[in-house]
Amino acid sequence: MHTHDEPIYGAGIWHFATYVDRYATDGYGEPRTVLDAIKLAGAVGELSVVDLNWPFPPGGISTAEVKDALAEQNLRAIAVTPEFYTGKFMKGGFTNPDPALRRDAIELVAAAAEVGRELGIDYVKLWPGQDGYDYPFQADYSDLWDKSVDAVRELAQAFPDLKFAIEYKPREPRNRMVFSSVARTLLAIEDMGVDNVGILLDFGHSLYGGETPAEAAKMAISRGRLFAIDVNDNFRGWDDDMVVGSVHLLETFEFFFALRDAGWQGVWQLDQFPFREDSVEAARAGIRTMRAFHHALNYLDRDELAAAQSAQDALAAQRVAKRALYRALAESESA
Amino acid sequence: MHTHDEPIYGAGIWHFATYVDRYATDGYGEPRTVLDAIKLAGAVGELSVVDLNWPFPPGGISTAEVKDALAEQNLRAIAVTPEFYTGKFMKGGFTNPDPALRRDAIELVAAAAEVGRELGIDYVKLWPGQDGYDYPFQADYSDLWDKSVDAVRELAQAFPDLKFAIEYKPREPRNRMVFSSVARTLLAIEDMGVDNVGILLDFGHSLYGGETPAEAAKMAISRGRLFAIDVNDNFRGWDDDMVVGSVHLLETFEFFFALRDAGWQGVWQLDQFPFREDSVEAARAGIRTMRAFHHALNYLDRDELAAAQSAQDALAAQRVAKRALYRALAESESA
Amino acid sequence: MHTHDEPIYGAGIWHFATYVDRYATDGYGEPRTVLDAIKLAGAVGELSVVDLNWPFPPGGISTAEVKDALAEQNLRAIAVTPEFYTGKFMKGGFTNPDPALRRDAIELVAAAAEVGRELGIDYVKLWPGQDGYDYPFQADYSDLWDKSVDAVRELAQAFPDLKFAIEYKPREPRNRMVFSSVARTLLAIEDMGVDNVGILLDFGHSLYGGETPAEAAKMAISRGRLFAIDVNDNFRGWDDDMVVGSVHLLETFEFFFALRDAGWQGVWQLDQFPFREDSVEAARAGIRTMRAFHHALNYLDRDELAAAQSAQDALAAQRVAKRALYRALAESESA
Amino acid sequence: MHTHDEPIYGAGIWHFATYVDRYATDGYGEPRTVLDAIKLAGAVGELSVVDLNWPFPPGGISTAEVKDALAEQNLRAIAVTPEFYTGKFMKGGFTNPDPALRRDAIELVAAAAEVGRELGIDYVKLWPGQDGYDYPFQADYSDLWDKSVDAVRELAQAFPDLKFAIEYKPREPRNRMVFSSVARTLLAIEDMGVDNVGILLDFGHSLYGGETPAEAAKMAISRGRLFAIDVNDNFRGWDDDMVVGSVHLLETFEFFFALRDAGWQGVWQLDQFPFREDSVEAARAGIRTMRAFHHALNYLDRDELAAAQSAQDALAAQRVAKRALYRALAESESA
Repeated sequence: MHTHDEPIYGAGIWHFATYVDRYATDGYGEPRTVLDAIKLAGAVGELSVVDLNWPFPPGGISTAEVKDALAEQNLRAIAVTPEFYTGKFMKGGFTNPDPALRRDAIELVAAAAEVGRELGIDYVKLWPGQDGYDYPFQADYSDLWDKSVDAVRELAQAFPDLKFAIEYKPREPRNRMVFSSVARTLLAIEDMGVDNVGILLDFGHSLYGGETPAEAAKMAISRGRLFAIDVNDNFRGWDDDMVVGSVHLLETFEFFFALRDAGWQGVWQLDQFPFREDSVEAARAGIRTMRAFHHALNYLDRDELAAAQSAQDALAAQRVAKRALYRALAESESA
Repeated sequence: MHTHDEPIYGAGIWHFATYVDRYATDGYGEPRTVLDAIKLAGAVGELSVVDLNWPFPPGGISTAEVKDALAEQNLRAIAVTPEFYTGKFMKGGFTNPDPALRRDAIELVAAAAEVGRELGIDYVKLWPGQDGYDYPFQADYSDLWDKSVDAVRELAQAFPDLKFAIEYKPREPRNRMVFSSVARTLLAIEDMGVDNVGILLDFGHSLYGGETPAEAAKMAISRGRLFAIDVNDNFRGWDDDMVVGSVHLLETFEFFFALRDAGWQGVWQLDQFPFREDSVEAARAGIRTMRAFHHALNYLDRDELAAAQSAQDALAAQRVAKRALYRALAESESA
Repeated sequence: MHTHDEPIYGAGIWHFATYVDRYATDGYGEPRTVLDAIKLAGAVGELSVVDLNWPFPPGGISTAEVKDALAEQNLRAIAVTPEFYTGKFMKGGFTNPDPALRRDAIELVAAAAEVGRELGIDYVKLWPGQDGYDYPFQADYSDLWDKSVDAVRELAQAFPDLKFAIEYKPREPRNRMVFSSVARTLLAIEDMGVDNVGILLDFGHSLYGGETPAEAAKMAISRGRLFAIDVNDNFRGWDDDMVVGSVHLLETFEFFFALRDAGWQGVWQLDQFPFREDSVEAARAGIRTMRAFHHALNYLDRDELAAAQSAQDALAAQRVAKRALYRALAESESA
Repeated sequence: MHTHDEPIYGAGIWHFATYVDRYATDGYGEPRTVLDAIKLAGAVGELSVVDLNWPFPPGGISTAEVKDALAEQNLRAIAVTPEFYTGKFMKGGFTNPDPALRRDAIELVAAAAEVGRELGIDYVKLWPGQDGYDYPFQADYSDLWDKSVDAVRELAQAFPDLKFAIEYKPREPRNRMVFSSVARTLLAIEDMGVDNVGILLDFGHSLYGGETPAEAAKMAISRGRLFAIDVNDNFRGWDDDMVVGSVHLLETFEFFFALRDAGWQGVWQLDQFPFREDSVEAARAGIRTMRAFHHALNYLDRDELAAAQSAQDALAAQRVAKRALYRALAESESA
C-alpha cells in the first residue's frame, strides 16, 4: 500500500548562489550568475528540478539561455520565484504604500509568470518578503491583509492556467510578515476565492514559527492547498536554512511521514543557504538524509505506530518511529 | 465619533486564587474557595464581572451560594470556565484517547453550561488545556483536530442559546495545543459550521505565540468571532500572566486601539496570575493601566495616525501613539 | 585511549514522583512517597544512584527508612536536593527579603547536608529555584547576587568535607533566576572563593537558555567545576524535561562527546518529568539512548572529526559524528 | 544628590549608512560613504561622538578626510570598529582556521587601533561577528575560546595606551558566537589577564540573549569592565536594532537607572539600523527617549524604590518607576 514511485528531488537555485548579509556586504564568496548556479545544481547529480529566481540573477540573462543551461544539466524548472522583495520594495510589494510600486510588484510577478509558462513550470512561487511591518503601530493590518489578498487574487485570475504557491514565513526581512503561518495563509486563500492558489510549506519557517511542521502540512493537505514544500533546518529561533536533518531529525522525519502517508505528491525540495559550506556537498548531504527518510518510511510499522498514537503513548510512538529512522540513517551513512 | 460608554472591567476569578506549581506543591499562599475569591474581587472596587471556574473550587459549593456571594459584591458572572484540564484529563479533554473520558469532558462542559445559564452568563469559555501533545510522533494530528471540532460543535448545537468562546494558547500544560493560534482556531470554527462559537483572545497567549495581538484581534473581529478578551503581560516566551503593561505597553495599547476602533463591544478582562503579589493590588494596577489606555484613545489623533500608517511611516506612527499614551499614563500614575 | 569503565546511570528521584501544575492541581496521578519512588527507580533495573529531595516527600519519613529502601533496590544516594523552593520561600531562599526566611533556607540546606553525610552522598545539590525576580524594577540585582554568593559560601565553609553543586537554570518558577547560566554561575563561584562548590549542568536548562550544552560543559570542566550533570530534552523554549534524545539527538550526543573526551568522570543522570508517561519506561528509554551515545563514542573516528573541526568543515564534522551515532542508535533500537 | 553633568550622546556611524541583507542585495537605499554618514550624524544636532567603522567605508578614504568631516560637524570619534567580519573572514577573524587569515584579522585590528590613536578615540571596539560556529559538532570550543582570548590579549598588550571594548552578541552572522553573553565575556577577560579590555554592552544583544540588561550592566560595572554601551530595541528574538524605547520602555529605563545609579560615566550611544526609516529622524527619536530617561531619573524617588526592592514588592517598585518615567515621557512627547 505504501509503494511509491522514486521520489523526485529539487532545490531553490539560490542554494547554489553566494550570499551577502548586513555585515559581510562584500559577500560570502564570489558572485555567481544563475547560469553558474545551474551548473552547480547539475553537479549534485541527484537533482531533477529547480526553482528559479526571476529576473535571472544578476539580470540580463535570457530565458533561452536559462533553458539551454537547464537542458545541459538535465534539470527542469519547477517554479519561478519573482524577486519583488528587493530594495525597491523595501516597504512592501503587494502592500507597498505607493500604488505605483504596488503595481510594479504585481507586474513583476506577472512577467515572471509569463517566463514561467515558457519554461513549463508547475507553479509560480510567491514569497512576499517585504510585505509586513517592523514596529508597533506602523501598519493598518486590515489594509495589509486586503492588499495582499487582492494582489494574489488578481494574479491568480490573470493566469488561470498556472498555480501560485505562497511561501509563508514568520519574519525576515520584515520584523513581521503578512503571510506568517499556515493557518493565516489558508484563511487568506479562502478570502481570495480562487482555486489556483496554494501554499509552499517551508519546513524551517514552520519550525521557527512555532508550528509542528507535520501538523501544518496535514492542515494544508486537508484543504487541498499544499502545492509544494521546501526542506532545511534551524535552531528554532530564526530561518537559519541549515542542511536538512542537522538539528531536528525526528521532526523532519515526521514531516516526511505526514506528507507521504497523506498521499501527497510533489517534489522534495531543498531550501538551504550554505553561507560557508560547499553548496554541492551541502545539497548532497541534504538529499542523502531525505533519501534515508524515504527508506525509513518503508521500514515504518504503521500499525504499531497507529496503535501508539491512538493511545497517545509517546514512548511507544517514538520507539516505532526511531527504529525505522535509525535503521535507514545507519544504512545511509555507512554506505 | 469615538465617544464610548464607560468601559466595563472584569477578571477571571482565578486571579484571586492562590496557586501551586510543580515545585511549590504546597502552594503560593493558603488555598481559597471561590467564595473567598469573590470577596477579593469585590474588594478591588472596580470590577463589574467575573469569569468563574466550574466546578466551583474547591468543590461542594452550590450555584446559589455563588450567586449570593456575587450579589453581595455587586458582581455578575460573565462566563463559566469548565475545568476539563485537571489530572483526570491529562491526556486530553475533547481529544482524550479514552472515549469515556472524552465523553466526561463534554458532559462536564455541558453541566457547566447549565450552571452558566442559571447564572446568566454571556458565554461558556472553552480552554482545552490538555488537548494537544508533547512529543514528536505522539499524536495523529487529524484525529486531534476532528475530535476537537466535533466536541465543540456538539456542545454549541446542544446549547444554541449560549455562546462558546475558545481561548487559544500555544502551549502549557501540553507542549503543543490544538487551538494554538487565532488563525487555526478560526479555521476550526469554520469547520464546526455553527454561529455560536467564537474566540476569547488572551493578549499574553497571542504575544508569546508570536502574533501581534492587535492584528490577531482584527482578524477575529473581521470574521465576527471575537467574543471576549483577556489581558495580562509576559516576557514573550511563556504565559507569565503578569500585570497588564508591566512589559509591553505599546503593544497592549495597540491592542486596545484595534479593539475600540473596530467598534468591538465587550468587557476588558484581566487574566493575571499574581503568584507572589497581593491579588487585589495587582488587579487595581492592571485596571489603572487599562483605564489609562482608554483615556489615551480619547487623546489619540487618528487622522495623523492614519496618515502615518498609510505611508508605513513607523517613526511618525509611533510618535502619534506615544504622545497620547504617555499623556494618559502620566495622568494616571500621578493621580 | 578511549576505553572507559562502564558508565554509571542515575536519576533524580522526582523522575518517579507524580506532579501537579497550576492547572492540574489535583495531580498527574496519585501522590507517591519517596519510598514508592525508590521502588520504581529500582524497577528500572539500570540505575545505580539517585538524587533525593529532602525533606523526604511527603515528609515524616526517616533517613533510616530511606536507607533501607535504597539498599533493597541496590541503589545509592549520590546527592540530596534540599527543597528550599516551596511556597514558604516564594520570594526567595538564599535571597529572601525576610532575614528569618533566608536563615531558614540556609538551615534547611544545612540539615539536608547532615542527612546527606549520613547517606554517604557525593554532593549536595543546590537549586535555588525561587531565587530571582519576576518584574522589571522588582529587585536590586547586586543584593540578590551578594546574598546568593554569601549563602553558598557559608554553607560550603560549614561543610568542608562535602561538595555543593549549583544547578543553574534560566527561569521557572521565577521569571528570571540568579544562577541562570554556566558563565554567571562560574563567576559566582569565583566570588565565593571556596573549593567545594561546583556546577550541576542540566542539559535542558543549558539548551533552552541559549547555550550549546557541549560548550557549556567544556567551560565548566576547564575551570574544574563540573561536579554533575542531568540529562533530558525540550523544545528549546522551556524546561520540558522530556525523555533524552526525543528532540535534540545530535546536540545531546555532542554533549556526551564533550564530557567523555575531556575525561570527565561522573554519573550519567536523568532529570526527566514524565507527566503523562510511565516513569519506569521513560527512564529505560532515556538510558537506552544514553547507552547508545556511549557506544557511538566508541565508534567515533576522532582523527577525522578533529581534522574537520580544525577546518570548521561543518559538513564533514557532522558526517563523522552521524556515522558513529546512527550506527549505535540503530543497534540500540533494533536490539 | 543625583545631579549629573549633561549626558553625552553618540552613535555608531553605521546608523547613517544604508544596508543590504540576503534578500535586498541591491540595498535599502543608495550606498553612502563614511563622509556622507558623518554629515547626516551632524544633521541630527544632538550627537557629540561617533564610533567609526574602519577601513572607512567604502574604502579609499583617508584619516585626514574623516578628521575634517568630523570637525565640520563638531563630532569626535569615540571609537573605531575594525571590520574583521567581512566575507574574507567568513569562518572567523580571531578564530579563523587558516592561521594567515587569523593573523590578517589581528593586523586589521592593529591598523584600526593606529588610526584610532590618531583620531584620539577612547576605545577600539571589538565585535568578532564571524567568530563562532553554525552547526553541532562543527567546532572545537576550547580552541575557539583560546584563539579568541589570545588574540585580544595580544592586541591589548600591543596597545597598552588604548582600551579595547568587546561587544558580545548571542548570534548573527554566525549561528552561535564565542563572546555571547556578559558573563562569558567577563570570564574571557579574566583569562586575558590584562587591564585594558572591557565590555561594550549592547542593550539589544543583552535583551534577545535572555539577559536582563540592567542586571548585566551591574555585573560588568562591579568588575570594572563596562567600557561602553549601545542602545536600541528589538522583539526579543533577534537583533532588530529598532529605535530606542519602541518596544521595551521599562527595561530600557531600568538599564539607564542601573548605569546612572552605579555612577557609570560614559556616552549614551545609539546602535540602531533604520533600514526603512529616515536615519536622522530615527536618531532624534532615540535621543528624545534617552533624554526622557535621564529626566525620569531625576524624578525617581529612590528611597521609595529601594524600600520596594528590599521587600521584592514588584507592584510598588513598578509604580515608583512608572510614575517618574511616564511624567518624563509625557513632557518629552508633548514638547
